[in-house]
Amino acid sequence: MGLYYPLVTSHSCLYTIGMKTITPRTLKGFRDFLPSDMRIRSFVIDTFKRMFEKYGYEPLETPTLEYADILMGKYGDEAEKLLYHFTDRGGREVAMKYDLTVPACRVLAQYQNDIPLPFKRYQIQPVWRADNTQKGRFREFYQCDGDTFGSSSMLSDAEYIQMGLESLQTLGFSDVVARINNRKFIDGLATYAGADQQQFSIICTAIDKLDKIGLAGVQAEMKNKGVSESAVQKITEVISITGSTQEKICTLKSLMRDIPQALLGIAELEELFSYLALAGVNKSLYVFDLTIIRGLSYYTGPVWEFVIVDGGVGSVGGGGRYDKLVGLYLGHDVPASGGSFGIERIIEVIKDRSMIKKDTNNQVLVTIFEPGLISTSIAVAQKLRAEGKSVILYPDSDTKLEKQLKYANKKGIDEVYIVGPEEVEKKQVKIKNMKTGEQTTVNQ
Amino acid sequence: MGLYYPLVTSHSCLYTIGMKTITPRTLKGFRDFLPSDMRIRSFVIDTFKRMFEKYGYEPLETPTLEYADILMGKYGDEAEKLLYHFTDRGGREVAMKYDLTVPACRVLAQYQNDIPLPFKRYQIQPVWRADNTQKGRFREFYQCDGDTFGSSSMLSDAEYIQMGLESLQTLGFSDVVARINNRKFIDGLATYAGADQQQFSIICTAIDKLDKIGLAGVQAEMKNKGVSESAVQKITEVISITGSTQEKICTLKSLMRDIPQALLGIAELEELFSYLALAGVNKSLYVFDLTIIRGLSYYTGPVWEFVIVDGGVGSVGGGGRYDKLVGLYLGHDVPASGGSFGIERIIEVIKDRSMIKKDTNNQVLVTIFEPGLISTSIAVAQKLRAEGKSVILYPDSDTKLEKQLKYANKKGIDEVYIVGPEEVEKKQVKIKNMKTGEQTTVNQ
Repeated sequence: MGLYYPLVTSHSCLYTIGMKTITPRTLKGFRDFLPSDMRIRSFVIDTFKRMFEKYGYEPLETPTLEYADILMGKYGDEAEKLLYHFTDRGGREVAMKYDLTVPACRVLAQYQNDIPLPFKRYQIQPVWRADNTQKGRFREFYQCDGDTFGSSSMLSDAEYIQMGLESLQTLGFSDVVARINNRKFIDGLATYAGADQQQFSIICTAIDKLDKIGLAGVQAEMKNKGVSESAVQKITEVISITGSTQEKICTLKSLMRDIPQALLGIAELEELFSYLALAGVNKSLYVFDLTIIRGLSYYTGPVWEFVIVDGGVGSVGGGGRYDKLVGLYLGHDVPASGGSFGIERIIEVIKDRSMIKKDTNNQVLVTIFEPGLISTSIAVAQKLRAEGKSVILYPDSDTKLEKQLKYANKKGIDEVYIVGPEEVEKKQVKIKNMKTGEQTTVNQ
Repeated sequence: MGLYYPLVTSHSCLYTIGMKTITPRTLKGFRDFLPSDMRIRSFVIDTFKRMFEKYGYEPLETPTLEYADILMGKYGDEAEKLLYHFTDRGGREVAMKYDLTVPACRVLAQYQNDIPLPFKRYQIQPVWRADNTQKGRFREFYQCDGDTFGSSSMLSDAEYIQMGLESLQTLGFSDVVARINNRKFIDGLATYAGADQQQFSIICTAIDKLDKIGLAGVQAEMKNKGVSESAVQKITEVISITGSTQEKICTLKSLMRDIPQALLGIAELEELFSYLALAGVNKSLYVFDLTIIRGLSYYTGPVWEFVIVDGGVGSVGGGGRYDKLVGLYLGHDVPASGGSFGIERIIEVIKDRSMIKKDTNNQVLVTIFEPGLISTSIAVAQKLRAEGKSVILYPDSDTKLEKQLKYANKKGIDEVYIVGPEEVEKKQVKIKNMKTGEQTTVNQ
């Protein structure tokens, strides 16, 4: 009773209100998802949900709006400029969700007594950033996070990587690889190279750009920022080490034998790799990659990226261990490990590569030959629905069959069911394949 | 590379930033959904999605933010006060989605060339209203709409009702009934009673309150608002008619034989009921109810409500035909029919009635007996996952088994898998039922 629909009391119009013309339009950076888009999005999101659940991650959702003070001061000044932030009608300072990490940390703090640790949660929700759309960025887009809070075991990291690989393979990416490194090892590498402790972040930032600027570029950047010639030399040698994961580990163990932090990182990786092997993950799906850094962020142990090898798609997800971050919110340390999938990018790639059939909707059209034959069409629709098909029963019985077929064509529906007087007599149904034009006849 | 996680450069904390203490909290009227909530919500939402798809409705999603002028002037002054409306950083007046109808109309107008009619769409998304939370209302809540745009056939109305009944039954409501009426008939009733044309809305509003204020209350309200004694008498007689749907139709056809508008409404209902019968919908699931009005809204033909008969739950959904509304937005008429389900209410009822088992998550815990036995536990977890189970593999191998069992208890996990040295030797797994304490042993 007005509960579900609002009252529309004014005779308003998207085109004209009074003398003003209003053009129907969406805000820059925001998108409508019509059915064909929705089908691909649902396929991707549902696949991740299923995989998260399989690996014991549990669903969490947090509100669109938060008190602004929950979000402010968490992302750095530049990022904070992108917050959708306003005063609500009650005078509260509020802001729209900017990412899924800070709200998850708030939840951990707020429900400490209700959430037993370890807590494996996944969260797939939109976030909002008033970003420059010219960079191909959206202002409303989905994030897809999974994390284990409250465990320092490498098993959490290994399971996330395993789950990620299985998810991406299930989505249809046969050429996926997890490139894995360790931040403790990189920390040790800086020491090994004789670099200043303050130069750690310079070194990270430089190596992180390897894909973009090449090895010479990385060396130049480190030198420009004051890293000594000999340190640059040593770092270059190490990150250029080739060989299998096992060979790299052997070489590095020997090279770094006097650097405890590096050995710790290598030991973590050995443990992680052993769990992947025990779980039967194919060795071709993961590699120890000394150049994976994951930006300047808060990682403290293993870091990884999921890369689609073929076709210049690059990274479609990543993550790592961050044992110190949650403590900043909670006041006491909670070790954590997990990551995100770039689902907007994954959706784009799946579209571009036509990785799912156009007719994932599995939709068929049941036509109505003439008003007098509506009962047969209803019965056919019922039967097909019971068989699990998604059925549009053309609702207008006085529409010419030709127009109904055109409708199927426009909608990209492949299979159309026709029951004319002849078919009724023989208790049959004609099935027309709209792609091939082929017609078959089956019993009702 | 900072793509998935934001940089956290400041050492901020939910509790303390500088000298300021920040309490982790959610905004009034906004909710966090922890895993146990999420499971019920997903069950309900996924069921509706599946049913919409089965009946040929296609998914649509529109953005959280719209240009304010798209939403303003659409809901009436009182409702407009509840809009979350602000100026974005680019100086645009924007507002958060208030319902799903206006955005759907915008989409119909904006993509007229891309969306062939009839267009059956469903949309399940959150909306935002700065409403009084003391009335038990939320400020962020989901709406669940399904509509057929571009068909004036009663078959659209019938299919919506059929889909709604099947959805609610699938959710576990065995005692659901669709109460169906027709606004053309009510219009005719006003004429039949000799009431003023302007009194139509007074009559509708009064009858709409029948459940709350009783028949005497309805009569008093009509009289107070100026409806004549004799008109009130005639209206009361008609809405008090009893009997089966077929009997009511016979009585009314005879009573209203001179009121074309009423006969038109009754003919629509007869057609609608015939389609429900042809589709095999059980006659006990729908009734012609002369008192269903659906508020003062924009309906022009059949109207209906889905009611849970048992336990004072009342209406959990409703809708109707509104052939004139979309035209207000598009400039030309597009007949339409559909409705909404009150999914927030449905979720509450399912929770209150414990209609789904607590352990819908199907989650099991695989423990790790001691660090040396981690490989067996990984193998068991793998096997269970392959069987379709949702498996938490306890990540910390040095946690005492007792504590792992306590963890399962706290999380409400019923089934725990234990592989101790004895089991390893015999290639077995012990399964402990946490509810009964019962232990069984199976082969690995």
